[in-house]
Amino acid sequence: MRNIVGLLRLKSKPDLRSAPGLSPAARKLVKLCRELLSDLNGTSNGVLAAEAIRLYETLDRPGRLAFFDLLIRDFSPSPDEVGRIAEDYRRDPSPENLKRLQHVVEPPRQELFRRLNIAAGGTRALIEMRRLALAGTESQAPLEPVAADLGHLLASWFNSGFLTLERIDWNSPAALLEKLIEYEAVHRIQGWRDLRRRLEADRRCYSFFHSALPNEPLIFIEVALTRGISEKIQPLIDPDAPVGDPVSADSAIFYSITNCQAGLRGVPLGNSLIKQVVEDLRSDLPRLRNFATLSPIPGFRDWLAREHANPKTALSDVMAGPETAGVLALLGQPRPDECEWPAELKQRLLSLCAWYLLNEKRDSEPLDPVARFHLRNGARLERVNWMADPSPGGMRQSAGLMANYVYELNDLQRNHELYTRAGEIPASGRMERLARNLAGSRKHGWLTRRFEPGIE
Amino acid sequence: MRNIVGLLRLKSKPDLRSAPGLSPAARKLVKLCRELLSDLNGTSNGVLAAEAIRLYETLDRPGRLAFFDLLIRDFSPSPDEVGRIAEDYRRDPSPENLKRLQHVVEPPRQELFRRLNIAAGGTRALIEMRRLALAGTESQAPLEPVAADLGHLLASWFNSGFLTLERIDWNSPAALLEKLIEYEAVHRIQGWRDLRRRLEADRRCYSFFHSALPNEPLIFIEVALTRGISEKIQPLIDPDAPVGDPVSADSAIFYSITNCQAGLRGVPLGNSLIKQVVEDLRSDLPRLRNFATLSPIPGFRDWLAREHANPKTALSDVMAGPETAGVLALLGQPRPDECEWPAELKQRLLSLCAWYLLNEKRDSEPLDPVARFHLRNGARLERVNWMADPSPGGMRQSAGLMANYVYELNDLQRNHELYTRAGEIPASGRMERLARNLAGSRKHGWLTRRFEPGIE
Amino acid sequence: MRNIVGLLRLKSKPDLRSAPGLSPAARKLVKLCRELLSDLNGTSNGVLAAEAIRLYETLDRPGRLAFFDLLIRDFSPSPDEVGRIAEDYRRDPSPENLKRLQHVVEPPRQELFRRLNIAAGGTRALIEMRRLALAGTESQAPLEPVAADLGHLLASWFNSGFLTLERIDWNSPAALLEKLIEYEAVHRIQGWRDLRRRLEADRRCYSFFHSALPNEPLIFIEVALTRGISEKIQPLIDPDAPVGDPVSADSAIFYSITNCQAGLRGVPLGNSLIKQVVEDLRSDLPRLRNFATLSPIPGFRDWLAREHANPKTALSDVMAGPETAGVLALLGQPRPDECEWPAELKQRLLSLCAWYLLNEKRDSEPLDPVARFHLRNGARLERVNWMADPSPGGMRQSAGLMANYVYELNDLQRNHELYTRAGEIPASGRMERLARNLAGSRKHGWLTRRFEPGIE
Amino acid sequence: MRNIVGLLRLKSKPDLRSAPGLSPAARKLVKLCRELLSDLNGTSNGVLAAEAIRLYETLDRPGRLAFFDLLIRDFSPSPDEVGRIAEDYRRDPSPENLKRLQHVVEPPRQELFRRLNIAAGGTRALIEMRRLALAGTESQAPLEPVAADLGHLLASWFNSGFLTLERIDWNSPAALLEKLIEYEAVHRIQGWRDLRRRLEADRRCYSFFHSALPNEPLIFIEVALTRGISEKIQPLIDPDAPVGDPVSADSAIFYSITNCQAGLRGVPLGNSLIKQVVEDLRSDLPRLRNFATLSPIPGFRDWLAREHANPKTALSDVMAGPETAGVLALLGQPRPDECEWPAELKQRLLSLCAWYLLNEKRDSEPLDPVARFHLRNGARLERVNWMADPSPGGMRQSAGLMANYVYELNDLQRNHELYTRAGEIPASGRMERLARNLAGSRKHGWLTRRFEPGIE
Repeated sequence: MRNIVGLLRLKSKPDLRSAPGLSPAARKLVKLCRELLSDLNGTSNGVLAAEAIRLYETLDRPGRLAFFDLLIRDFSPSPDEVGRIAEDYRRDPSPENLKRLQHVVEPPRQELFRRLNIAAGGTRALIEMRRLALAGTESQAPLEPVAADLGHLLASWFNSGFLTLERIDWNSPAALLEKLIEYEAVHRIQGWRDLRRRLEADRRCYSFFHSALPNEPLIFIEVALTRGISEKIQPLIDPDAPVGDPVSADSAIFYSITNCQAGLRGVPLGNSLIKQVVEDLRSDLPRLRNFATLSPIPGFRDWLAREHANPKTALSDVMAGPETAGVLALLGQPRPDECEWPAELKQRLLSLCAWYLLNEKRDSEPLDPVARFHLRNGARLERVNWMADPSPGGMRQSAGLMANYVYELNDLQRNHELYTRAGEIPASGRMERLARNLAGSRKHGWLTRRFEPGIE
Repeated sequence: MRNIVGLLRLKSKPDLRSAPGLSPAARKLVKLCRELLSDLNGTSNGVLAAEAIRLYETLDRPGRLAFFDLLIRDFSPSPDEVGRIAEDYRRDPSPENLKRLQHVVEPPRQELFRRLNIAAGGTRALIEMRRLALAGTESQAPLEPVAADLGHLLASWFNSGFLTLERIDWNSPAALLEKLIEYEAVHRIQGWRDLRRRLEADRRCYSFFHSALPNEPLIFIEVALTRGISEKIQPLIDPDAPVGDPVSADSAIFYSITNCQAGLRGVPLGNSLIKQVVEDLRSDLPRLRNFATLSPIPGFRDWLAREHANPKTALSDVMAGPETAGVLALLGQPRPDECEWPAELKQRLLSLCAWYLLNEKRDSEPLDPVARFHLRNGARLERVNWMADPSPGGMRQSAGLMANYVYELNDLQRNHELYTRAGEIPASGRMERLARNLAGSRKHGWLTRRFEPGIE
Repeated sequence: MRNIVGLLRLKSKPDLRSAPGLSPAARKLVKLCRELLSDLNGTSNGVLAAEAIRLYETLDRPGRLAFFDLLIRDFSPSPDEVGRIAEDYRRDPSPENLKRLQHVVEPPRQELFRRLNIAAGGTRALIEMRRLALAGTESQAPLEPVAADLGHLLASWFNSGFLTLERIDWNSPAALLEKLIEYEAVHRIQGWRDLRRRLEADRRCYSFFHSALPNEPLIFIEVALTRGISEKIQPLIDPDAPVGDPVSADSAIFYSITNCQAGLRGVPLGNSLIKQVVEDLRSDLPRLRNFATLSPIPGFRDWLAREHANPKTALSDVMAGPETAGVLALLGQPRPDECEWPAELKQRLLSLCAWYLLNEKRDSEPLDPVARFHLRNGARLERVNWMADPSPGGMRQSAGLMANYVYELNDLQRNHELYTRAGEIPASGRMERLARNLAGSRKHGWLTRRFEPGIE
Repeated sequence: MRNIVGLLRLKSKPDLRSAPGLSPAARKLVKLCRELLSDLNGTSNGVLAAEAIRLYETLDRPGRLAFFDLLIRDFSPSPDEVGRIAEDYRRDPSPENLKRLQHVVEPPRQELFRRLNIAAGGTRALIEMRRLALAGTESQAPLEPVAADLGHLLASWFNSGFLTLERIDWNSPAALLEKLIEYEAVHRIQGWRDLRRRLEADRRCYSFFHSALPNEPLIFIEVALTRGISEKIQPLIDPDAPVGDPVSADSAIFYSITNCQAGLRGVPLGNSLIKQVVEDLRSDLPRLRNFATLSPIPGFRDWLAREHANPKTALSDVMAGPETAGVLALLGQPRPDECEWPAELKQRLLSLCAWYLLNEKRDSEPLDPVARFHLRNGARLERVNWMADPSPGGMRQSAGLMANYVYELNDLQRNHELYTRAGEIPASGRMERLARNLAGSRKHGWLTRRFEPGIE
């Protein structure tokens, strides 16, 4: 198997004395890592890897970060060697020289991580390492290479082909359900009674799992089965709401999606989640006709504030106008949801939101992260809902508004391609009119292409 | 996730017209692969990947090989780009330039394979691709890059940490047991009756499995529970042998190990297999004291013939002597196992075998592939057994002899290190004396270090 | 719980000396049974019951029969006591006296069996006891009480409410599949290859199981998915028949039903089997329209011979006629299926069979046992098929003919009631015409009511 | 199968008009029950039974009780017929007449219940019927026959041989765990946090299950793994108690046993529970040496009050003495556990309790129901503990005291026999001395036999 694993190259003389802050456990850990890598074919990896993981787990946070520093210092490709072989390749671009180059540019820590993974609990420990390296990265740029190498491995290992979708219900293990309570990030679960309500007959919950992390949800989604597409979040998360009949429901509302593992950030787990859930729901409940989200618009309020302070040309009149001033005044009240909103101010807030979702971009994609997620998946922006989430968080981020993104299986692929290739945002006529109203106040041209399924 | 997956680079103008032998299906497949790779974040991969896998499976063998050719022609790194970035790195060996270089040397087909894996049955199809690429490689050198890239991915995905050891018995699914009959490579299973005997109370069978290939054994091992370390294979594989009491057994004899997936050749699946099996057996049957193989010596007879024809200096007298001539004459008989073997000729054959196992090397390891496997694992060469396998295959490969390699959990790590670092072969005194007898006839010095557990 | 279990009464002075043939083990077993029964609340039953079962299993057949004799002699109700309490009840038919009477007429061995059941493997042992008692009964009338008491208990324990229907396929445990090969009684399974064919995509197999006998089929049914209602058995049981596409099948043919446990004879396990299988098939394969058996007619040939030798009035002309003589002559040939059958003789044989099925009764039900089973279930007699089973057994029992009984879910209940209450046999017009032809030759009146669904 | 099921006899002319309070649903239910019973072989039972169960469940409580009344009036043995056959038997006590008598004394509703059981959910419904009949019985004597017949069937169906012991832990389904919270009767579980603590590493929970009631605990037991035999309940049920290491524990304390199904009252489910749990714990945690309960003494305080008011001769001095008066005075305080108890009063209360447990009988067994349960099982009364449960319930029932009963596997059978046959109570010397102290004050003789394992 040498042809696969490759020969391992490490700096010949690691000098641990030059890492004065290193604890004895960390020194021993680094020594173990060298042994692990130096082993011809990895027979003993099980033992060494388990011991290395154990030692890592005894380290405190600074110890772990110091260990990462050493991984970067001592388990990186050698610039000299890379330079030399790159030069060989420049002179003779043969397949052999390419292979040598490929080999020499891979950091040895990559193979180290593969070998650590062999230990029981290894995968979990590596995810935790990446979580810490990512968290450390924000302040400490140097940890980025560790996070990147782990990310590369984890993205390969957590390839969608290795994930299984499972329904979670009240018959699931308590140890698993408890994690939903802990992880739920969008609409917090207030204990077991609340959780139980979210698993009743008119609710569904699905999660992706990986065989190396049994009973550990990776990403989960909560669904309400309703009549009509929901306009408000409160009835969906009210523990005391009466239980509806799932068979008579015509809509499945995805009201919460939670990524559970910080160490898997950036690994694309969720792409096929909603699609698979839609397929499962359709075969289970053939009367369902609408599959839609009820989503926060987390960047809206911040954008509004920034834009008001410093409007771009296209919106300068809008932002300077009395309606926008009125909107901001009402939003500044203690309980904006309890205020009387004149119709034109309501309209203005909705129009501003439609504009934000349809026209404000970062690179070629919408500024709003939730919009990016659903539009990449091939969903259509259907509606923004007035005071759909008047909770403090909902007001602070989204001015109380929430959006419905609709998933139509037949359109997902086409929408996805239009979005990713042409940068077009599939949206309902209503959404486009709302945004146009705003733009119309400036009479300028309009960019978003009208897109409704079955109409073009 | 772009930071993980990376931007994808393909030759800008693939010209499928210049691949005249390509069938329409293969053309469509290549087109799909391009789409799959060009997709921003892979939302649609599920659909495209499934369609690509389906198309691949409609191709005949020449069509598949032609597809591989295109993967090599069009989905490889661009030498120009690699050369350019290597040159950048040569001038400025910064982390950024290293990263660009790492990125540019990875063949795009690697990411293609990751995306194909998303389809249901994707992993199975990729293993099959590699099997074919490896088979094609023997004659057609150009397919090696496809085999190598797939091998790299599969080695990562089939990391020991993702394998689970399971016991197989008569309560296992018939669909699984049927595969044992099909795959068993060492001592063929003669139908269901034979299989059933191998799963009785005094036998054990274990296999590694991967979650992406349910009910598909990757590598399996067959064990007989006996009194004493077995000297002959026949009683272990006789379907009519009486069933012994496992509780009174003192020895577990590993009499067959089979790699099941040709497409996983070189992926180290078996390293920890025997060790884990020993641990499971020990906790299940605490009276077991010996854990040993009864193994073929597949290269012995060929070596003997080569050496006799053209002896190296150290063995020239031995090979020229009358005993060796007598040994070869008897081995040339139609049924050597039924001949009368004078004691000195028996002794000579055993000594030649001990010499072969202990002294004949390829690089720093034994010439014999089975010896390499067990010695890397940390086993000790204990004994060679007279006419242990008088079947035609056993005579042809191993002159009827078989070896016992002993696994002692406490010694595995030390043995492994001595073997891999110092090139020493842990062997019983008996084995060393046998080999020395032969050498003794030349009075030359002796190299193999005596090694017995607990004695040094 | 004394109110439930009741006080236990045994003959006060069992005299084992008067059972001279009893082995020491059997004596000890009887002693244990007494202890088991004398125990106040059965705390120690687990231990005593396990020991008793173990002892029973050491007995040879005569020993077991002698044990049964003692169960009858010593563990029966006391006639004196029964007489006395019956007399009390005659004088005063109060609820209390009824209760005393109920209690005193139950044989103590009934409670003994309940307590033996507590041991691990107890249920299995009791089924085996009943099998032996039934087998013994044919010659030895006295064992009947043991068989009857066990039958009473087992009928209660194996109540349909406690049985679970499970599909058996090639992924089922080999230890279970092996039992199908052993048990199949209608069309013998010729080894694993044959079995595997019967579990391919165009076949189905279902069995009832009970939680106390894991992996032990109680009654199983084999189904072929075909186009059209099968007329011949051979294509259904040919191991080399090409595998059809289950999705395009329109008919499910029940071609074999086997009761597996001789000790459960008379316990109604099969009543709901076909009905549940039909429901499962319908939801799995919505295109299925016909659910029918292809059944042997096991009493036909014997009846024909008896009737010919000694015809009843209604058939005396028919039996004396030249057609019947011709039929019998051809059936007497070595390979009747290879003979040329003139059309009128074919017709005569089919008519005789239709008559046999529709008109020959035992009490109020058909003489043919297979007909009784399906008609009680609510099926309709649809067709008899020419040379449908030309195997030696098929010729010997059924003159090569086989019958289709059709299960229509909507008619089962009505058919069942007509059959069980009015003694009417639901049959197709074709079957009635066939029988009438025969009768017509005598011009006498006709009894069977015409019955076709949706027509009346 | 007619020989097993028997012919069914019902009153020939049931007159539902004479049951004027009967609702239409109840009338229809009774009609269905007649059909169900009249069916020859029960083919249609599935349908009829399901419909009958459904109808029953639509009835309100009075409707159900009225239905029971009809079961008693119309589905009972006919006194005339019983009288006549009893008379036959009196004249000729032949096996045939006995059989007829057995048959005629069985109430037809027994067979009715067997047939109702066939419906999905039938078993559950029958258990519910018995619960209601038992509850009704306390006031309405006439329902006793229904409860008794159901009890007879359920005792047979829930025979220990059909129960499986399973460990419950935090990985069990939430729907099951929720039932523990609901059912726990001894020390109430205060929500999910409390439950979780009771399932931590130093706790165990086991339950018996029946295959007809999946995920429905029948009887469950909670165990604490401790060092030493616990004297106080509080540390065992404190949700905030630190989690101990189960491997270092030497004692398993059974601190709660709960029967879950009121409809199974009197069915002996618990006999083998503790024994099986002890065996499981021993193989799992070989260091455990003590297996003991910490049990309430629920009848003690009431007995004390009754005895004080109206002492029997043997205790008249004791009851009249100043110590007893002091004990009662302190027990009358608001928080007796916080009072200062003089040593002699403590001693007096413990002695009274020992006397109560060892000498106060109902029939031949102790008055205390918990003592009866454990002593029948073969346990030994080891100790009574001072203020072990100072909760309001503990004070009210047991004067704050709790008892340890010790389970030693080797002694269970002998203890059980001594107890059930000779009426002896196995007890520690300490317990006997405590009781004797009290008796000693009267100098009268002593009955309880000293019994300590390994000493006699």
